[in-house]
Amino acid sequence: MTDFPKHVRAVAPASIGNLGPGLDVLGCAVTGAGDAVMAEWCDAPGVVVRDPGHPELPADPALHASAIAATAVLRQALGGGMRPPASGIALTVRKELPLSAGQGGSAASAVAGAVATNALCGSPLPTEALLDACLVAESTVAGRHLDNLAPSLLGGICLVRSMDPIDVVRLSVPEGLYIVLAHPAQRLRTAEARAVLPGMIDRATALHQAAQVGAIVAALASGDLALLGRAIDDRIAEPARAPLIPGFREAKAAALTAGALGASISGAGPTTFALAGELACAQAVAAAMEAAFASRAITSSVRVCEVDRVGARVEVDP
Amino acid sequence: MTDFPKHVRAVAPASIGNLGPGLDVLGCAVTGAGDAVMAEWCDAPGVVVRDPGHPELPADPALHASAIAATAVLRQALGGGMRPPASGIALTVRKELPLSAGQGGSAASAVAGAVATNALCGSPLPTEALLDACLVAESTVAGRHLDNLAPSLLGGICLVRSMDPIDVVRLSVPEGLYIVLAHPAQRLRTAEARAVLPGMIDRATALHQAAQVGAIVAALASGDLALLGRAIDDRIAEPARAPLIPGFREAKAAALTAGALGASISGAGPTTFALAGELACAQAVAAAMEAAFASRAITSSVRVCEVDRVGARVEVDP
Repeated sequence: MTDFPKHVRAVAPASIGNLGPGLDVLGCAVTGAGDAVMAEWCDAPGVVVRDPGHPELPADPALHASAIAATAVLRQALGGGMRPPASGIALTVRKELPLSAGQGGSAASAVAGAVATNALCGSPLPTEALLDACLVAESTVAGRHLDNLAPSLLGGICLVRSMDPIDVVRLSVPEGLYIVLAHPAQRLRTAEARAVLPGMIDRATALHQAAQVGAIVAALASGDLALLGRAIDDRIAEPARAPLIPGFREAKAAALTAGALGASISGAGPTTFALAGELACAQAVAAAMEAAFASRAITSSVRVCEVDRVGARVEVDP
Repeated sequence: MTDFPKHVRAVAPASIGNLGPGLDVLGCAVTGAGDAVMAEWCDAPGVVVRDPGHPELPADPALHASAIAATAVLRQALGGGMRPPASGIALTVRKELPLSAGQGGSAASAVAGAVATNALCGSPLPTEALLDACLVAESTVAGRHLDNLAPSLLGGICLVRSMDPIDVVRLSVPEGLYIVLAHPAQRLRTAEARAVLPGMIDRATALHQAAQVGAIVAALASGDLALLGRAIDDRIAEPARAPLIPGFREAKAAALTAGALGASISGAGPTTFALAGELACAQAVAAAMEAAFASRAITSSVRVCEVDRVGARVEVDP
């Protein structure tokens, strides 16, 4: 008989989706703040949300990313023959990532919920099944994409080769890569940012974008940070979304002037990211981006981070 | 004063352009037959073609790929201050690659012409300038693309990140990769094969294609040949061009059934390529592809090769 832990706490990192030209296919986990979920056995059936983590997030388990993912995990675990020690699972969410910011917050909540629940159930699910469960949540609250989920779960920089079936490639992460996130005081709903994407793309642009994705992978593998910077050249999403983010163009230009390797929109925005090859440069880039937003009278919160190579972490309390 | 060689012979390998999903951006040099150009000083001004290498190829230096590239090299060398020992350069071309086959023959002719001429001039031009000169030729006879030229010149598998400016990345080549080329007895002009490409591509297809290019680069870097095979999934050029190549679908299916990692159209076709992870498998794939074409009453010539890691070679005769 399985010896279940009483409660499990899982933390999942923020991530940059749509990394540069990698719309829907490239994502990068970043160090620092993350979403945390405490899962514990309870008498109510199914999954209940004790604390959604933010006043604006729903307590309805059918609508909260953590609970949707947890429910999918629990269902798969029960389907696999797990005999649970109680009727259901209660989740307490600690939301550290900002809402509608483009930092993969809904993905981090889903991953933390899935990972905590899986550990509570004795870890019956392999990685693909966890991604599958998280995808149910992400589809409901943000859109059916793996480019935030995969790095938040697995850590590092991930390429989503295919969603059907799920085929995710963890890429090399070079030493000495720093990431600046500048989050202007604005919210941008993923649905709104997706609505402006072009449905059809001219062939030259599509092929150029494909070459940039290839160049990013090559640069990560060889550690050629200059090439990485040149390949942060998104001609599909960035031109469409830049007008939705006041101050973005100024912040990007300021980042490049301050020595950033490249800069673009993180996920659906409005967070803007920049890459740097040295810590001092990253700090200068962060200051320059903050000043650029401020010049448009926009408050922003900036932070310097690195690639999170670990992904979701679990603390199990037996 | 420069001591010029009297004549130079250069050989450039065949190449697979449009490698799988890498339309216009990924190319691979292959071992075996290549085009050769002998360049020597002569009294006629400019560049003259002594032997175009094939009865159907023009002797007019303004129309022959080798001579166009040689002329561009000579012009750059003269512009750089070279003082030539004679009025002009005469080229003798030995054409080993089939015409309009999709094996990068025009690129190999251009590269061999450029490299031979550059060596004859004392090698004043760096790689980018040589690519630039070859691009003049390729633009005239086939189309302005580097995906055959770059691997034919540099060897290996190349990613063309950008043409303006030229930015070519040489990718890792894993051990144990075999390539089968099956050339059905058919000619397909590049212009005709380009005319069927869609001008606009729906976003999902474009992003899927970009992910496959990234996955190919990742697979080459890590040596994951199974991933390489899964990523040979071209949803832009192959569906448009397959109807132009009788027997292609059968040959591809036969290759996969015989154990190929992946298969698609080489360049603009009609040559069909397949990848294999072992020599015995490659030989079985070659036989299967030949039989598949034969089942449609199409004669084909098949060969098993490897990635040519060297690119253009020079023999200088002082």
